[in-house]
Amino acid sequence: MKRTQPFVFAILGSVLIFSHAIGQDDAKRSFGSVNEQFASDSLEIAEIFRLALTESNVYPWLGDMCRNIGHRLSGSLQADEAVEYSFDLMNDLGLNPWKQSLMVPVWKRGAKELSYYVSEDGQKDELSILALGGSIATGDDGLVADVVEVKTWDELKQLGEEGVKGKIVFFNEEMNPENLYTFHSYGHCVMHRWGGAVEAAKYGAVGVLVRSLNLRIDDFPHTGSMKYEDGITKIPAAAVSTQDAETLSKLLSVGNDVKVMMLMMCKTLDDKESFNVIGEIKGTEHPEKAILVGGHLDSWDVGDGAHDDGAGVMQSLGVLELLQKINYQPKHTVRVVFFMNEENGLRGATAYSEYAQSGKEEHIAAIESDRGGFTPRGFHVEGNQSQIQKIQSWKELLDEYGIHQVEEGGAGADVGPLKTENNVLIGFVPDSQRYFDHHHSANDTFDTVNKRELELGTASIAALVYLIDKYGL
Amino acid sequence: MKRTQPFVFAILGSVLIFSHAIGQDDAKRSFGSVNEQFASDSLEIAEIFRLALTESNVYPWLGDMCRNIGHRLSGSLQADEAVEYSFDLMNDLGLNPWKQSLMVPVWKRGAKELSYYVSEDGQKDELSILALGGSIATGDDGLVADVVEVKTWDELKQLGEEGVKGKIVFFNEEMNPENLYTFHSYGHCVMHRWGGAVEAAKYGAVGVLVRSLNLRIDDFPHTGSMKYEDGITKIPAAAVSTQDAETLSKLLSVGNDVKVMMLMMCKTLDDKESFNVIGEIKGTEHPEKAILVGGHLDSWDVGDGAHDDGAGVMQSLGVLELLQKINYQPKHTVRVVFFMNEENGLRGATAYSEYAQSGKEEHIAAIESDRGGFTPRGFHVEGNQSQIQKIQSWKELLDEYGIHQVEEGGAGADVGPLKTENNVLIGFVPDSQRYFDHHHSANDTFDTVNKRELELGTASIAALVYLIDKYGL
Repeated sequence: MKRTQPFVFAILGSVLIFSHAIGQDDAKRSFGSVNEQFASDSLEIAEIFRLALTESNVYPWLGDMCRNIGHRLSGSLQADEAVEYSFDLMNDLGLNPWKQSLMVPVWKRGAKELSYYVSEDGQKDELSILALGGSIATGDDGLVADVVEVKTWDELKQLGEEGVKGKIVFFNEEMNPENLYTFHSYGHCVMHRWGGAVEAAKYGAVGVLVRSLNLRIDDFPHTGSMKYEDGITKIPAAAVSTQDAETLSKLLSVGNDVKVMMLMMCKTLDDKESFNVIGEIKGTEHPEKAILVGGHLDSWDVGDGAHDDGAGVMQSLGVLELLQKINYQPKHTVRVVFFMNEENGLRGATAYSEYAQSGKEEHIAAIESDRGGFTPRGFHVEGNQSQIQKIQSWKELLDEYGIHQVEEGGAGADVGPLKTENNVLIGFVPDSQRYFDHHHSANDTFDTVNKRELELGTASIAALVYLIDKYGL
Repeated sequence: MKRTQPFVFAILGSVLIFSHAIGQDDAKRSFGSVNEQFASDSLEIAEIFRLALTESNVYPWLGDMCRNIGHRLSGSLQADEAVEYSFDLMNDLGLNPWKQSLMVPVWKRGAKELSYYVSEDGQKDELSILALGGSIATGDDGLVADVVEVKTWDELKQLGEEGVKGKIVFFNEEMNPENLYTFHSYGHCVMHRWGGAVEAAKYGAVGVLVRSLNLRIDDFPHTGSMKYEDGITKIPAAAVSTQDAETLSKLLSVGNDVKVMMLMMCKTLDDKESFNVIGEIKGTEHPEKAILVGGHLDSWDVGDGAHDDGAGVMQSLGVLELLQKINYQPKHTVRVVFFMNEENGLRGATAYSEYAQSGKEEHIAAIESDRGGFTPRGFHVEGNQSQIQKIQSWKELLDEYGIHQVEEGGAGADVGPLKTENNVLIGFVPDSQRYFDHHHSANDTFDTVNKRELELGTASIAALVYLIDKYGL
């Protein structure tokens, strides 16, 4: 074969695909090329992003919390430590922090769960399970019962008491992979985790296994909140990993009788005092009008609570740090709230909304980050059409930073109770593809957080706060 | 504290943030709400994405190659295996594959490198290094010399022969974290990896260490291509991990004399035959006009070559699979090319461009995927303004899938030689934040590829091929 190009030239080709960039920075930061109205904003926002990528402390803050404290379920010693750590961080930034007292539920997992199956044809293996938060224990001898699989409430109803009584009901609805925004698929399936124990108990079930809310097939069980109802027998409930859910389902699909043993030691103790942690930069013109940014400090009791929602609280704090770094004096008070107890009670959100209703400030906007520390995509907005359109009018300032999807949608659980007729709630929306690989599982660890993605999210929220403060909504 | 909300209600709040989604799929798939001209395209593209997320084989293909073959440097047995595996995959899809013969360079790392430093003040520790591809060995006793650090060509020149002769030059330019698009920062630094050994040798250096092209601080050295020049003494060159680069720099910054030992056993053998692997779906109207999609099959000799560029070749093949799955009969020939030897010679691209110049087909467009298996962001286009604008006019069809940045820019090394006056070259651009965590290192492994991100990239390219085939450029 004849070669017309010498080796060195060929190699240079692979270098030269970047040649339009050598000796210059991002061609795309189009300072001054935006609508004239926004020329100075374009520069401010570029500086916010530059500082987020070079000087922000969000990543080390999150790393310290994840590595030195770890997960922090409401009422745990770790949650207490996280409150103190958060207070100190806010204090160090000069944000005049305070702790809002509230009572939180205390649920303890106890010793790690054990579970295995035995099928009629002699197969036997362990199952990876995690008790759902709030579940009762099985008793020290464990619970052994036949398993019956359902994918919908209708299938449960069809089976009725005859098919369910004395058995463990296995809810095996898969998250729908077709939705691009993975939270839509979560929205479909979470009802079984939340209400499965109640509905199954109505037909005499003795336990519940729920397929983990995870789009991957792997061996991490994913816990989460569940409910009991007065007058309905409480039965133990656990999540099973997607991999083991597939195994169970295959065994059952060939007509096997399958028994499962579940041993869970969890219990609920008395409520205990805990805190929201709150700091702020006072507004220069309208100190009585607040723009809130927040996430939740508590996490489930596995992994580090890195994406859910260590990322969100540290990003929220990082927003105020960035405003300080660009020497921006907000006209409105910019307040950061680390909400306690989002995961199993929402008591922090409730307590804060009571404070808000007391009328000390008007919350003109409240922004939540609780969808992981991933690369930015946009914002979901709860407000009227003119408010949504106003945020969309800033698109040319934000698109180059990856923020291209600003649309109507739910903001978040912690800011939800703050909605009034006039204000705007906003949820930060990072890319959702990887979130449910980690959510509520031992896989939600700091090493799965990319520093730059976390920083870009922080800058995205800071840019939005800057624009809301400057132009109102 | 008074609680106004009962526990169950509070929990429901956290479920209800998803309530707008329960019982429905992605609100954003706006079938029919696009410009009337594009109504049927909107449905086709939705189907492409649906099938990518449910039936595509890109992820298992990549997993099989990474796990069963692994990395595959040109001329290695693994590269031979990868050629056979690729041919079989194309054959199974009915793509009438053929192998284009070419000669590739053969460079062997040999035994793993060893390196350590000893500083004047008595500190001593190992350094994580990887020989750069093409480097000569150090000899069996290793090379021991004083180290001198530079960040720029200018600093090297300032030191001159007096400061450099007999020493190891340590190029320690950090990748600039300020660029949002990380390839821009790569473009700045790669010159030291590529040309450092030549420039340092001109002043009498005996070896070169280059800071790894990685935006994180970690312990993975990242290899890559380098050059020697006739008439300039060849000296050994290796990449050092960012963590160890920081350590070395700190030791040197306090005025320490630091000696480094490098032991590298690498060697270059005679060129060997290898292959591009090529398959196609014949066009129904213009079989002589081709739309090419491709990536490179070879990788560096560490990790799995999962993101670079296993992801790209399997996505390219997955594009043709998706066109088959929607029963689309392209008017133009859609050809997939797995290029050999992108990393250290670009011989595959050269050989294919010679074939293209032979005039059997006109390549109206060539699309490359070689920036990792990450979530889609857009495309970089080499063409005239009207061609770029035509692709941008499809934005309303693509934005909801995350493809929001379509702009002028380099397409890629393998398709580069195919440029003509009339055609268009396109590079698929996924989110770039994580790419250099993995690139050319032992950390480029299959477990770091997210299935959904890989599938969304495949669908993005397939949607573009569909639109180019239908509307031309």
